[in-house]
Amino acid sequence: VSNEKSETRIQRKELTRFIDSIFLKAGVSRVHAGILAQKIVDTNLYGVDSHGVLRVPVYTRRIIKGVMNNLPKFRLLKDQGFLGILDGDNAPGILAANAGMHCAIKKAKKSGLGICGVVKSNHFGAAGVFARLASDNNLVGIALTNVAPLMSMPGAKGPIIGNNPFAIAVPAREFPLVLDISLSQVALGKILMAQKKGEAIPSDWAVDLDGNPTTDPVKAAEGYLLPLGAHKGFGLALMVDLFCGLLTGGAFLQDLKGMYKFPNDPSLTAHLFIAYDPGMILTESEYQERIDLFVKTIKNTPTAPGVPQVILPGEIEFRSWKERIEKGIPLQETLIVELNSLASELGVKDRL
Amino acid sequence: VSNEKSETRIQRKELTRFIDSIFLKAGVSRVHAGILAQKIVDTNLYGVDSHGVLRVPVYTRRIIKGVMNNLPKFRLLKDQGFLGILDGDNAPGILAANAGMHCAIKKAKKSGLGICGVVKSNHFGAAGVFARLASDNNLVGIALTNVAPLMSMPGAKGPIIGNNPFAIAVPAREFPLVLDISLSQVALGKILMAQKKGEAIPSDWAVDLDGNPTTDPVKAAEGYLLPLGAHKGFGLALMVDLFCGLLTGGAFLQDLKGMYKFPNDPSLTAHLFIAYDPGMILTESEYQERIDLFVKTIKNTPTAPGVPQVILPGEIEFRSWKERIEKGIPLQETLIVELNSLASELGVKDRL
Repeated sequence: VSNEKSETRIQRKELTRFIDSIFLKAGVSRVHAGILAQKIVDTNLYGVDSHGVLRVPVYTRRIIKGVMNNLPKFRLLKDQGFLGILDGDNAPGILAANAGMHCAIKKAKKSGLGICGVVKSNHFGAAGVFARLASDNNLVGIALTNVAPLMSMPGAKGPIIGNNPFAIAVPAREFPLVLDISLSQVALGKILMAQKKGEAIPSDWAVDLDGNPTTDPVKAAEGYLLPLGAHKGFGLALMVDLFCGLLTGGAFLQDLKGMYKFPNDPSLTAHLFIAYDPGMILTESEYQERIDLFVKTIKNTPTAPGVPQVILPGEIEFRSWKERIEKGIPLQETLIVELNSLASELGVKDRL
Repeated sequence: VSNEKSETRIQRKELTRFIDSIFLKAGVSRVHAGILAQKIVDTNLYGVDSHGVLRVPVYTRRIIKGVMNNLPKFRLLKDQGFLGILDGDNAPGILAANAGMHCAIKKAKKSGLGICGVVKSNHFGAAGVFARLASDNNLVGIALTNVAPLMSMPGAKGPIIGNNPFAIAVPAREFPLVLDISLSQVALGKILMAQKKGEAIPSDWAVDLDGNPTTDPVKAAEGYLLPLGAHKGFGLALMVDLFCGLLTGGAFLQDLKGMYKFPNDPSLTAHLFIAYDPGMILTESEYQERIDLFVKTIKNTPTAPGVPQVILPGEIEFRSWKERIEKGIPLQETLIVELNSLASELGVKDRL
């Protein structure tokens, strides 16, 4: 089914099978190809199209070139009570992250809390996917990752810190509350969109190459993103890198290599996963009662005429999931062409 | 020593003794009066004047009226491995928070990690003061608190969530890296300042009473603050309340009573304190080497001509501390008059 934006809807099953075949042909094991395909399609089901199927070509090329390890073996470098450190073995980040959150979940189920750092990993896609693994198990989940420096501060020349995304998922009745954000004021995509439209941007979105805040989207795109709320987002991004990279024994700051700028280098990305069992303090019914009240209170906030309810974190993703499970996942024609060409190149018979 | 802004510098010792006397006369125990005075003066030494001595009158009046408990007894409602829940016993929040972070620190020293929730507390001043208790012990410290709803979202009518401040402190060589922020785009003080100057404010600072974003500081001050980066700060504020209030068994959302709007009610504030020992993964020398590199890398970021170095979280506070330990703490004359009048009322002989 095509629509006016040159999109085609692909059913979840078909898309998963197709991506699975691509990773299999790229030399990934059957189990790992299945996990990659599922997590990537989940990302699109939640509506986070910027971090899902769109990334299959770059991930696949890095695997084929041997830049990422197609047959990673995950090993706990440390495994002590609540704490684990997993060697990501230069795996595709999604696989290392999946193993890392499962380690945290296992520990949380045993003793109420699990914390698992992952070192020597790569781009892991959307943080929310891993935080949700915990909430799917009735646990609170937190997923953090560092990324190579790409944000600056006014007056500084050059990138200082990544926009270090993180997600927090809290189980609730209808859908988990899931916050999934990065720490830049806006994503680069918003600046590129202003550039296309020829519009000025607010001066707190980016600095030019010389460190001057700019309202010119062209200069902004050449320059560097600014953190969310200036010093607030800057400080938070530093803390995420400290937690993921510095404290786990992993790489941090300029030792990280972004996959687009350094296509032939392992990214050395480090992640942190936390799972916590609310049952440590509350009974199941106490928890349900309290989270129901929390959700109801916020949804019942009075709104201006014509304004719908306050939207909870994770609500848009929940709606997207329901809609896309039914109607399929919309993919841009240009992406479908790219994926089909990749399939052809690899000798995969399926086409989207 | 007076300066042009009608301020007087008071030496740390003198100010601490004076505040200690006030709380003693208000019926607080010797030990607790000492802790209150020390933490409050520390807050001003770090330059966080909005959360220090300025709050002594409101705290004292709440104690005298019996709204806050002058002789609290702290009891662990839960004490299991890494996790504690402390009954704040309606104490002045600074005392309950101090006990809470000390509980977390004790656990972290024993087993690498301590988490302590505090329920039934009150306004605890500056979060950074408690996070620093951990970094003073070579531990990473995190301090979160919920506060009564005071932020809204565009289109919503009325407050939804507190600006829920938190602090993270990480030990480092010259000074700990300390992020200490709240989750509103700006503090109310900035709106009041624009009002005084008759200046318009950016439309992402606040909404009016009807939920419309406004550039009019008068309407903004009547209305509600907006969260940092809209949905990002909103989601984070919800998560802080979930962690402090909902998951600890404490109060959350509208059950919290702000001390200015509800001067005769316990605030029921809930906090969360976390202490973590970096030695769980890194040796002392590995940690020192890594944090030195982290700090050096950021301080060495090139800057535009005339622009000083990038400032690290906690650096301004560190400089303030050094300057104020030497030259004394500047207090506005109006505040000194108020404090002296309070002293007179209580029969305290000292005057500032």
